[in-house]
Amino acid sequence: MAVAASPHPQTPHADSRRRDPASRRAALAGLLNAHDADAMIVGDLVNVRYLSGFTGSNGAVLVWADTDRGHDRIATDGRYTSQVAAQAPDLEALIARDTVAVLLAEAAARRSGVRVAFEADAMTVAQYDELTSSDMPDGVALVPVRGLVEGLRETKDDDEIAAVERACALGDQALANLVDRNAIAPGRTERRVARELEWEMYSLGADAIAFETIVAAGENSAVPHHRPTDAVLAPGDFVKIDFGAVYDGYHSDMTRTFVLGEPADWQREIYEIVRTAQEAGCAALKAGAATRDVDAAAREIIVAAGYGKQYVHGLGHGVGLQIHEAPGIGAASTGTLLDGATVTVEPGIYLPGRGGVRIEDTLVVDGSGARSLTHAPRALRIL
Amino acid sequence: MAVAASPHPQTPHADSRRRDPASRRAALAGLLNAHDADAMIVGDLVNVRYLSGFTGSNGAVLVWADTDRGHDRIATDGRYTSQVAAQAPDLEALIARDTVAVLLAEAAARRSGVRVAFEADAMTVAQYDELTSSDMPDGVALVPVRGLVEGLRETKDDDEIAAVERACALGDQALANLVDRNAIAPGRTERRVARELEWEMYSLGADAIAFETIVAAGENSAVPHHRPTDAVLAPGDFVKIDFGAVYDGYHSDMTRTFVLGEPADWQREIYEIVRTAQEAGCAALKAGAATRDVDAAAREIIVAAGYGKQYVHGLGHGVGLQIHEAPGIGAASTGTLLDGATVTVEPGIYLPGRGGVRIEDTLVVDGSGARSLTHAPRALRIL
Repeated sequence: MAVAASPHPQTPHADSRRRDPASRRAALAGLLNAHDADAMIVGDLVNVRYLSGFTGSNGAVLVWADTDRGHDRIATDGRYTSQVAAQAPDLEALIARDTVAVLLAEAAARRSGVRVAFEADAMTVAQYDELTSSDMPDGVALVPVRGLVEGLRETKDDDEIAAVERACALGDQALANLVDRNAIAPGRTERRVARELEWEMYSLGADAIAFETIVAAGENSAVPHHRPTDAVLAPGDFVKIDFGAVYDGYHSDMTRTFVLGEPADWQREIYEIVRTAQEAGCAALKAGAATRDVDAAAREIIVAAGYGKQYVHGLGHGVGLQIHEAPGIGAASTGTLLDGATVTVEPGIYLPGRGGVRIEDTLVVDGSGARSLTHAPRALRIL
Repeated sequence: MAVAASPHPQTPHADSRRRDPASRRAALAGLLNAHDADAMIVGDLVNVRYLSGFTGSNGAVLVWADTDRGHDRIATDGRYTSQVAAQAPDLEALIARDTVAVLLAEAAARRSGVRVAFEADAMTVAQYDELTSSDMPDGVALVPVRGLVEGLRETKDDDEIAAVERACALGDQALANLVDRNAIAPGRTERRVARELEWEMYSLGADAIAFETIVAAGENSAVPHHRPTDAVLAPGDFVKIDFGAVYDGYHSDMTRTFVLGEPADWQREIYEIVRTAQEAGCAALKAGAATRDVDAAAREIIVAAGYGKQYVHGLGHGVGLQIHEAPGIGAASTGTLLDGATVTVEPGIYLPGRGGVRIEDTLVVDGSGARSLTHAPRALRIL
């Protein structure tokens, strides 16, 4: 298929930015002093993967504030004994069902009166109560922290960007294959189109589907997060497709909206507004930019056109090991974009009972702008 | 395909057991007095669906201890305004991004000094701190509770059992189709077999895949939770397939282990041990049975055969709106089985470097035993 020009040329980095799990833990260790913590227990599984390479469904990592990484530990249960050894060979593994409790005991055994940070956004009230009421070793203090690993994850290293880019390429190619063989056409169901798109991604080498594929035709395209149904695509429909692939743990995210047959005036109108807004949003991306300003760059175009109330969500979000991660890019966002962030830009207009348009790309931010990792054509395509 | 006899005949219930969302909320209301709570805010999305019918990705429900359900509320954000009206027509909806905070304000406005229960297993430490530090209306008390809705969900009503049974039938048929067309065969990759099995489930009408399909061949079959790779199936391999479908929100879960060509003696040996243990576990299911006794019924057979250390997980788990839910059935479980529970029975033996076997069915428990909802043959099948 044709490949659209990137909105920004790739900026090569003078020094390669690659971080192995140990150097990621070292970066986390450097943040712990500011929280007066001697160590941190990380139990969010995505963060565990980021800090260790381990991908099992039960695990936690203990990271010390020391510069010596030799005391860091990982804990998981007996199902994963061999897997953890293979995936996290540089970490001594403790095998136990209650991974957080065993790491807390490990921390207490090494240093009396140890202050251990934990993820306030991952630990539930019940887990906290259990830890502090019964399992808590004497003299240990728990320090709630928020977003430390998530903040590290915002800046992708070169390998991570390459993985997101590969996931995006799989999505681009899968969609192109469907278009090429006329699989998005009147008479087919939303569900069928969704399943074929997913099959294409798998066939091309995707490890997984990034999230439940959205195929929304006709009136359904006015529902921002529509689940594919047995609704049949019909001439005149908008067909909004929001989907992604996973490659080596990293996600892609793209939306394209097609029209089946000659578009009506209202369809051309809202499509062009969204397209212009999406371009403006992409153009506003740059390391150091306030995320709310990026949102505003796109939103003001839709508001000026009179469709502000029909654009019911934020402009975008970070994408990486999770489909939705930091930073958020919305009207109420408070952060700034970091060099190496991979984010989506996805404005939309939704007219209930008629139809809707969303256009979304995944881009990587750098010091001078951003480069799109998704390349499917953005102009209105008539199928 | 051949259908194995059910281990227990279906026991019809004299009175149909069907619960609409309002009667589920009434059942929850009846539990709140014991916790000295006037109301409960439920934010776990699966529980929200159970209590309201709403399936969006952001939502919470306020349930009053009163018998009058007219004051119950649901909250979600602007993306779901029309969806919540369609799915939860009997609940007044509040549209706000922070659903828990808006429901807490609603509760406080109705009754001063209101005591509001919340799910200690769903609310994070950070959410709790935010609620109690800034958003907390004067005079409101938060009461942590655990497992209330999950406990209600353990007993499935007739519609829920029918949905699980339909999901199981989709899984049975999909696997049969693969076997019938010789798709599980030497020369094919684990990944390819997994994708074709998923495609079959979708084609047969599954709404989703219950979890990432496990296809594990040869040595990989010794890994309890193996992710499909490009490993090629070879003659002599065990091929362990653990998979499920989702129908109307309800999951199925089944594992079968095949052998490619004539099995070796060690393969026959461990297969028959697991098969015997699995039958014993199924036979031990009955409303009122202690879950640990059910686990023991299967486990003692594997232990007696000398493979206790090669069986590294519990016997089973509840399955319904989630693939893993209450009750747990393991050596350390403390509960008893309820009439109408849908659970798995899935012992295994895993020999690292050689291969492993797991056999798993999903069954529904009743007063006299249990009925299997999955029917694929359980005897060793040579492909």
